[in-house]
Amino acid sequence: MAEARLSYRATGVDLDAAEQAKERLAELVAATRDRWTLSDLGSFGGLYRLPDDASEPVLVSSADGVGTKLKVAFLAGRHDTVGRDLVNHCVNDILVQGARPLFFLDYLATGALDEAVVIDVVRGVAAACRDNGCALLGGETAQMPDFYAPGEYDLAGFIVGLVSRGRLLDGSAVAEGDALIGLASSGLHTNGYTLARRIVFDVMGLEAGDSLPGVDASVADALLAVHRSYAASLLPLLSAGRIHALAHVTGGGIPGNLPRVLPDGLGACIRRGSWPVPPLFTTLAARGGVEEAEMDRVFNMGVGMIAVVSPSEVEGLLGDLARAGETAWTIGSVVAGAGVEYVGGP
Amino acid sequence: MAEARLSYRATGVDLDAAEQAKERLAELVAATRDRWTLSDLGSFGGLYRLPDDASEPVLVSSADGVGTKLKVAFLAGRHDTVGRDLVNHCVNDILVQGARPLFFLDYLATGALDEAVVIDVVRGVAAACRDNGCALLGGETAQMPDFYAPGEYDLAGFIVGLVSRGRLLDGSAVAEGDALIGLASSGLHTNGYTLARRIVFDVMGLEAGDSLPGVDASVADALLAVHRSYAASLLPLLSAGRIHALAHVTGGGIPGNLPRVLPDGLGACIRRGSWPVPPLFTTLAARGGVEEAEMDRVFNMGVGMIAVVSPSEVEGLLGDLARAGETAWTIGSVVAGAGVEYVGGP
Repeated sequence: MAEARLSYRATGVDLDAAEQAKERLAELVAATRDRWTLSDLGSFGGLYRLPDDASEPVLVSSADGVGTKLKVAFLAGRHDTVGRDLVNHCVNDILVQGARPLFFLDYLATGALDEAVVIDVVRGVAAACRDNGCALLGGETAQMPDFYAPGEYDLAGFIVGLVSRGRLLDGSAVAEGDALIGLASSGLHTNGYTLARRIVFDVMGLEAGDSLPGVDASVADALLAVHRSYAASLLPLLSAGRIHALAHVTGGGIPGNLPRVLPDGLGACIRRGSWPVPPLFTTLAARGGVEEAEMDRVFNMGVGMIAVVSPSEVEGLLGDLARAGETAWTIGSVVAGAGVEYVGGP
Repeated sequence: MAEARLSYRATGVDLDAAEQAKERLAELVAATRDRWTLSDLGSFGGLYRLPDDASEPVLVSSADGVGTKLKVAFLAGRHDTVGRDLVNHCVNDILVQGARPLFFLDYLATGALDEAVVIDVVRGVAAACRDNGCALLGGETAQMPDFYAPGEYDLAGFIVGLVSRGRLLDGSAVAEGDALIGLASSGLHTNGYTLARRIVFDVMGLEAGDSLPGVDASVADALLAVHRSYAASLLPLLSAGRIHALAHVTGGGIPGNLPRVLPDGLGACIRRGSWPVPPLFTTLAARGGVEEAEMDRVFNMGVGMIAVVSPSEVEGLLGDLARAGETAWTIGSVVAGAGVEYVGGP
């Protein structure tokens, strides 16, 4: 005897809505196809011919999420920026090994599927893929009722890039005395949001639409500023062999990320005051009562990427970076030792 | 004036715990390395040399999650199986395009980071990577407080495989009259869990440790049975060119997945009764009052993979599959038309 009359839709999973969303997503995906892309959405796996311009090709791959920056997107009701954050973050993560992006896949998990939100999120992903010259090869949109709160979702991404083995950035080119060039971030990028949200929303009591004191922007605009991709500026310099190493300043800040790309026996000396820490960070530190060392470890403090270069290259590179639209500063140098030491005062 | 004394740890994000977990994860990852793997965990991106044995290499990539099967793992407190589900699901998704797996990355998002759970999850991922001859190249473990309920997490994966262009399964080899060989699933695999959980836990009122009526297993054992990978059995047959197409029976069931691999103008005729529908499915249908067409669309009904083959190959293939440890049946044939038609009665 049947004790219930259940269907999948009755449990909150709507396969028809999923099919419908998939059709609209297919258009967004199609706009990112390049001459190496073989498959359309709908295949079980995405197909990508290996470009034949790399000798000894090495695939470089990375997985990442957006973290709790998503919560700010939920509060602001703005869903077309987080996909860009995700792609740009992943692009930067393989860039620091010398690789250019080939293709990207996303994982979007929601409670009930809200087609408009899904489309906005994937629109951001697709736009950033196009901007970075990378195909959106596929992805998964999962409906997981009673997993995510209404209106909430999680978003993760996976990237595959390519580099010739001889062009891999593995730290071996770094020498004592090398200069550190810091490239400006656009804001918090995708790190430190759990702490930043606590300060802005709980301690300061602000809402997404309020203006953020000390910062010439609304809370939503300041906190949702898109994570920058440095691929367009840095790939030409990598091809020319002008960069010894790159560090993407993500969770862990400069102290957590820069040492990862320096060889054993070498550390970094960072000069405080050699770049302007943006007001967003000083406001968070002041209002949250966050100690300096903790700020350095949680946030990028205005520096989203660090290039390790020969001292003789600094002037030329700063010029080239400025022409490419980057704001950059010499922020320190490579020294004997280990880890990161800060010198100078604010 | 400071209005608070905040640190990252105070907000629920523990960078030290993350570092500690990372060290133990590194050991699990190291065990999956093969001769093409260049990087250790800790680089920003994982490095993989492209194997040189494929002519016109095509990369095949897929992203997926485990869905709400995770909820069963939470209820059962068993975290070492879902990683295997994830990897095997992804392996099957690229297998159906003819590709063998190269490498895998995972995304694991939690509220507070419970090191023991994270290690168990990644242990499952790493074990399945080894079983499938695939390197675990990296991954992301995200701490997202106030995103996931205590003790809960989400898990997604991303796979990259390789196939020579001439060996791509693109449906072009499929002809009218081809036979459909169904390969047994191990259970629900990773689909239909929202409906299954509703029936088992809400309608039937069972708990994870209870025995499941009609099924010779506990609820936890029946619902957490690991999604099978068919790579070991099918890759040799693919290399030998003996399979025209493969369909991985996931969300959407046979009607949602088999037509995706058939060329235009061809459909499938499936004979009911040509394989034994396992008691787990009949119990779910009976106790949930789920209609037959809905069961077919939500669950795999005991068939996890379908191979489309030449009728003259059927006998030989059934023998080879049996020797490889598969349970397989001829379940229907390719016919003129579109979609899937079921014939015969139970």
